Amino acid sequence: MQLLRAGARGQERPALRDGTGALRDLSSIVDDISGPFLSPECIERIRAVDPSALPEVPPGTRIGACVGSVGKFICIGLNYADHARETGKEPPDEPVVFMKATSAICGPDDDIEIPRGSEKTDWEVELAVVIGTRAKYVSREQALDHVAGYCVANDVSERAFQSERGGQWTKGKSHDTFGPIGPWLVTRDEIPDPQNLDLWLEVDGVRRQTGNTRTMIFDVAFLISYLSRFMTLEPGDVISTGTPPGVGLGLKPPAFLRPGQTITLGIEKLGTQAQRTVSA
Amino acid sequence: MQLLRAGARGQERPALRDGTGALRDLSSIVDDISGPFLSPECIERIRAVDPSALPEVPPGTRIGACVGSVGKFICIGLNYADHARETGKEPPDEPVVFMKATSAICGPDDDIEIPRGSEKTDWEVELAVVIGTRAKYVSREQALDHVAGYCVANDVSERAFQSERGGQWTKGKSHDTFGPIGPWLVTRDEIPDPQNLDLWLEVDGVRRQTGNTRTMIFDVAFLISYLSRFMTLEPGDVISTGTPPGVGLGLKPPAFLRPGQTITLGIEKLGTQAQRTVSA
Repeated sequence: MQLLRAGARGQERPALRDGTGALRDLSSIVDDISGPFLSPECIERIRAVDPSALPEVPPGTRIGACVGSVGKFICIGLNYADHARETGKEPPDEPVVFMKATSAICGPDDDIEIPRGSEKTDWEVELAVVIGTRAKYVSREQALDHVAGYCVANDVSERAFQSERGGQWTKGKSHDTFGPIGPWLVTRDEIPDPQNLDLWLEVDGVRRQTGNTRTMIFDVAFLISYLSRFMTLEPGDVISTGTPPGVGLGLKPPAFLRPGQTITLGIEKLGTQAQRTVSA
Repeated sequence: MQLLRAGARGQERPALRDGTGALRDLSSIVDDISGPFLSPECIERIRAVDPSALPEVPPGTRIGACVGSVGKFICIGLNYADHARETGKEPPDEPVVFMKATSAICGPDDDIEIPRGSEKTDWEVELAVVIGTRAKYVSREQALDHVAGYCVANDVSERAFQSERGGQWTKGKSHDTFGPIGPWLVTRDEIPDPQNLDLWLEVDGVRRQTGNTRTMIFDVAFLISYLSRFMTLEPGDVISTGTPPGVGLGLKPPAFLRPGQTITLGIEKLGTQAQRTVSA
């Protein structure tokens, strides 16, 4: 299933995308697409509904972030060996873990703000994993059982704020609109192998990133198990699993975003995003 | 006012501590002590209530985290010059910013888990600031207007996970129970000068940390203004403002927590916390 949230910002309603591509309003079935509604039981309850019996979402309705009330927005850094190299770093021995502010989360096609004073706002297409059930000290073998589904994320980053302003990456990862997720959460049953998905990103129609999740250093199952040793993963938490090569910082010379550009990105089976850049 | 949340974990009800020290149930007035209920209007609505007209919370009821549904748990590192020195680092030129997982938040007297495999779990008494109104690109002069109140926090940290396991501090800051906040949120009007508060921490009755918020490198108003350039601060967000000297890592030789110990800590005007350490 493809689950999403549609409506004005802060007023999104749960929906599903049916076999014809039409969006159907799920608000008679669940309150939201968020932690409490991502359990296997709840997903089966949605699956049992006949989509044609649900009201259609009016065409043109804004698509919001595909998960609401995200508790933690966890990111993995340098998780593709060739991306690590382009940033001038060695591939890490253990996953590099950081957090984005949950207030950075936005819809897949919302405008992206270039922060005031920014000269190095950059793009990163990433496979994001949405947690469905609580995970603490789980094994790699059990890890994928805790996944509700997958979606596209753009881990927008301000490189100077991230690395030239003193310690820790959070400052460069957390501006409003730096976390588009969606358009939809694709439930786990439809992605039997998360390690074989093509992903890509273009800026103003120029291809910048081309990759496949098979070249991740640490795979999704390992990441969930690993993270669960350091913090409890809760339903509705989002883990963005790192980006393949081709970010602006890695170009020669480096190139960054300025207002008025268009970013398009997508992942096989998970849909596409399209954003315009604007001044904050 | 002293606002708090009392009840079993996950079932806390809003309460206030009246002039006699009794806890009064506020659930007829507000749903929770959390973002939507921290606006100046809402705090004035609570202030207008006669506490003696509210039911008393049964004595012995557990005290929960003093803020519910925290969106971001933002921390400032190395914000006391003498603490920076004891960790072997120079005082930073700009605030060091990192995030703790919101799932680490717990009540002020809850047990603290020593993670599996941990040998370096450490303590950090900190002044925490609770945001009351949205703050984006706010000036230092306006910054304190966005504060709902203040509370005590223990920024519990696993030093090996933080610094010896590859990049970024998040891994050592996010274990369940690593973020006791409370016992109560003291509203801003009662703390006219947040830069003159004594703070202290003891382990098994031995004084380990003694400090005063006047020795912060970056004061609360500056921190709010600074953070608001990198991310929007939202009602219910918590900012923990760094720790004075005396953490276990800074002792000679270093000393860390093991199961079965007792930590007590407090800040002038903001109350005290007491935790037992247990194995995860």
